[in-house]
Amino acid sequence: MKQADIGLIGLAVMGQNLALNINDHGFRLSVFNRTTSKVDDFINGSAKGTQIIGTYSIEEFVNSLSSPRRILLMVKAGEVVDHFIELLVPHLDTGDIIMDGGNSLYTDTTRRVKSMEKKGIVYLGTGISGGEEGARNGPSIMPGGNKEGWPQVKNILQSITAKVDGEPCCEWIGEEGAGHYVKMVHNGIEYGDMQLICEAYQFLREGLSLSVDEIADIFSQWNEGELNSYLIEITSHILRVKDADGEPLVDKILDSAGQKGTGKWTAINSLELGIPLTLIGEAVYSRFLSALKSERVKAAKVLEGPDTEFDYTEQEKAQYIDAVKDALYASKIISYTQGYMLMREAAKAYQWNLNYGGIALIWRGGCIIRSRFLDSIKHAYSNNPELESLLLDDFFQQAIASAQTGWRKTVSLAVESGIPVPGFAAALTFYDGYRMESVPANLLQAQRDYFGAHTFERIDQPRGEFFHHEWADES
Amino acid sequence: MKQADIGLIGLAVMGQNLALNINDHGFRLSVFNRTTSKVDDFINGSAKGTQIIGTYSIEEFVNSLSSPRRILLMVKAGEVVDHFIELLVPHLDTGDIIMDGGNSLYTDTTRRVKSMEKKGIVYLGTGISGGEEGARNGPSIMPGGNKEGWPQVKNILQSITAKVDGEPCCEWIGEEGAGHYVKMVHNGIEYGDMQLICEAYQFLREGLSLSVDEIADIFSQWNEGELNSYLIEITSHILRVKDADGEPLVDKILDSAGQKGTGKWTAINSLELGIPLTLIGEAVYSRFLSALKSERVKAAKVLEGPDTEFDYTEQEKAQYIDAVKDALYASKIISYTQGYMLMREAAKAYQWNLNYGGIALIWRGGCIIRSRFLDSIKHAYSNNPELESLLLDDFFQQAIASAQTGWRKTVSLAVESGIPVPGFAAALTFYDGYRMESVPANLLQAQRDYFGAHTFERIDQPRGEFFHHEWADES
Repeated sequence: MKQADIGLIGLAVMGQNLALNINDHGFRLSVFNRTTSKVDDFINGSAKGTQIIGTYSIEEFVNSLSSPRRILLMVKAGEVVDHFIELLVPHLDTGDIIMDGGNSLYTDTTRRVKSMEKKGIVYLGTGISGGEEGARNGPSIMPGGNKEGWPQVKNILQSITAKVDGEPCCEWIGEEGAGHYVKMVHNGIEYGDMQLICEAYQFLREGLSLSVDEIADIFSQWNEGELNSYLIEITSHILRVKDADGEPLVDKILDSAGQKGTGKWTAINSLELGIPLTLIGEAVYSRFLSALKSERVKAAKVLEGPDTEFDYTEQEKAQYIDAVKDALYASKIISYTQGYMLMREAAKAYQWNLNYGGIALIWRGGCIIRSRFLDSIKHAYSNNPELESLLLDDFFQQAIASAQTGWRKTVSLAVESGIPVPGFAAALTFYDGYRMESVPANLLQAQRDYFGAHTFERIDQPRGEFFHHEWADES
Repeated sequence: MKQADIGLIGLAVMGQNLALNINDHGFRLSVFNRTTSKVDDFINGSAKGTQIIGTYSIEEFVNSLSSPRRILLMVKAGEVVDHFIELLVPHLDTGDIIMDGGNSLYTDTTRRVKSMEKKGIVYLGTGISGGEEGARNGPSIMPGGNKEGWPQVKNILQSITAKVDGEPCCEWIGEEGAGHYVKMVHNGIEYGDMQLICEAYQFLREGLSLSVDEIADIFSQWNEGELNSYLIEITSHILRVKDADGEPLVDKILDSAGQKGTGKWTAINSLELGIPLTLIGEAVYSRFLSALKSERVKAAKVLEGPDTEFDYTEQEKAQYIDAVKDALYASKIISYTQGYMLMREAAKAYQWNLNYGGIALIWRGGCIIRSRFLDSIKHAYSNNPELESLLLDDFFQQAIASAQTGWRKTVSLAVESGIPVPGFAAALTFYDGYRMESVPANLLQAQRDYFGAHTFERIDQPRGEFFHHEWADES
């Protein structure tokens, strides 16, 4: 029997869909799953009629692959990955390639790349985004790790990935855990995008008292313009779906958000690296707050606030809706600015060569955060690969400049009406802090010097010279 | 020679001041320092005329102590602590006590408590706050770890600590690293308090265009009321200090904030435990942003914003100043609410018995966040030791209710005028989210179910039952 071009381990939904996608593109594929009945189910089920080869032991699986072996792990992040690596390694030869397509923590991937390198195995941490549908029809793929393996898998990965303007949404990311790192930041940005959409929705619903159908129309309309994106699109779809009783299904869903941890990792990493990732931070915290449902129900009964619904004329209505769009767009610019600041710092801290424009290109299609917006980011980095901050790019400067009146209006209205807009507000206070030549950290440094003799620098002296003042003596 | 009651290692400023404080209270004390010339400097310098015994080797130091030996480490957190433990242990007997008075990470302390217990050594992680001045005249002390040691050190620690209404600001905190954990949260809260003061200062300065002297007067006045606290007091002192040229010294200080990491640890821990610690998070991120000075200078030149200075009448002036006070007070309530939420979750996660009222009592005096406000927290927990949230206490509910108009006014004015108020805004958006029975996390769950089949719960079905909808089929 002809040997397979690639093997895939782990036949949960994502694994099955990727397998079918790989098969569609003419690659010969072997699959294996720990619970082998799942192999049968797959081969006799959705893989029926394909060339996909089912295998029933690690040995059979490994032996079915052509050399160098290419193995894609689609298993649960964490110990399960290490477990399969242990099972595989004794059967592999020098130069064989293991790819991890799960949501592994980048530090785990860095560790695995290094330990496999010692054994002569090429390890690639390969972030994959796009959910079930992306896996089936073309995901966004972020490969990193031991670059030796890239030429061996490039053709397969770039074949199965999404394409935008003919370009594959898969490009080499960087060394060690860089692929999983960038996938983690992608997920953090996804948290931010979803939070901002939820805030826009709540403002339209509670502030302007619009119906769910009206809001669905607004999102459809927004999807035609600069906000065009997968998440805006599915939001308009979601809002149109009715429950059995004819009411919007969204109203029947419990408002307690789950998470799988990648947003949290992104926020923790930003704290470790010293980057103000305020918007994603608020998005993660908002999920935590939503999960405190019973505490919120109690608090709702006793904590006062203004009436969320406000009066407006028909003419003002359109203005307010536009203002919310401005808030969403401007806040999104801030979120991506912060995300790119984080990746820049990570590249410095971990000594990776990250291709920022390439990352935008990868995210343009296939993944959950795909959007027209990412074209503009790609352009910004094409214009200046060394761009320090998205906010210093002309396009984004102008975009923020024209959105900011509506953005400020939305936040101040929300604040006066008691509608929570943690993301819009965090983005705006960041913007105002970022564009301030002087922030009151001078007072903060004085306080630290007062109680802890932590010293301070002076604006009229060179950086790196530290001064202490005996404040208490003079007061 | 009579043996010493306690020994102290590490003669930096904090160590020296604590040594003098211990001596003042009639305890016989030995000191040691790695660089032994510092022992001489101290004994012949500020310790001249005291009963303090200088020692010049670990052996001499250990032999100078009565049994059980009580040793207080005042050395740099991290490896240095482990280093001294290693040096000490061979010379110690079962039941001897090591206390770590530095800012150690609580997980390190938990590790040390356990490893010392195996060797028969009692280890106490003892958070100490109050800076140099507190160390000298009475700090706030948060001891935790192996409780066997508490009766042996209680008298000394409660003697040297600050007193409020005759009660010592030192009480047993809890198991393992609980003492250092609570000290870490204290420092996080300190970050929050300082951030809020800086925002109030900037609003008064940039928005109302008040002079530094006028603002000093306002802080002095605020210090007479509910905001009475050490940090408000020193702020008014700082603002009165003039540089050689007669200008306020604060204006000569570079606005780039430093930090030693405890605020960052607190924020990371909140992400690990799933608690929305938004205000301290913003305080940490604001320090990061302040440190990006050169990027801000560039951004200031190109990023547009409204004029920060706004017009007002003399009558409005007093109203605006009061509104800022309201914003500061209400935001402070939110910060402490979040901090206590975090400690509550930590107690659950790490199985510690934390005494929340006791913690407020400890913080009332001696430490950097000491304030009248902490009396109200103490009362809240005296009234209800099981209080779920400070916001559910009558006093704080009413306090927020009366402050909220001014608070909302301040945030909306700042937002319209481009004055960054990340802390005030994060606190307010948290308050509005916390008191919402329904937040838009239902939409978020629908999105997650749409692209990732993550399922959702329904409001009309029992918790724990999960549903999936094929959204795309209907759109």
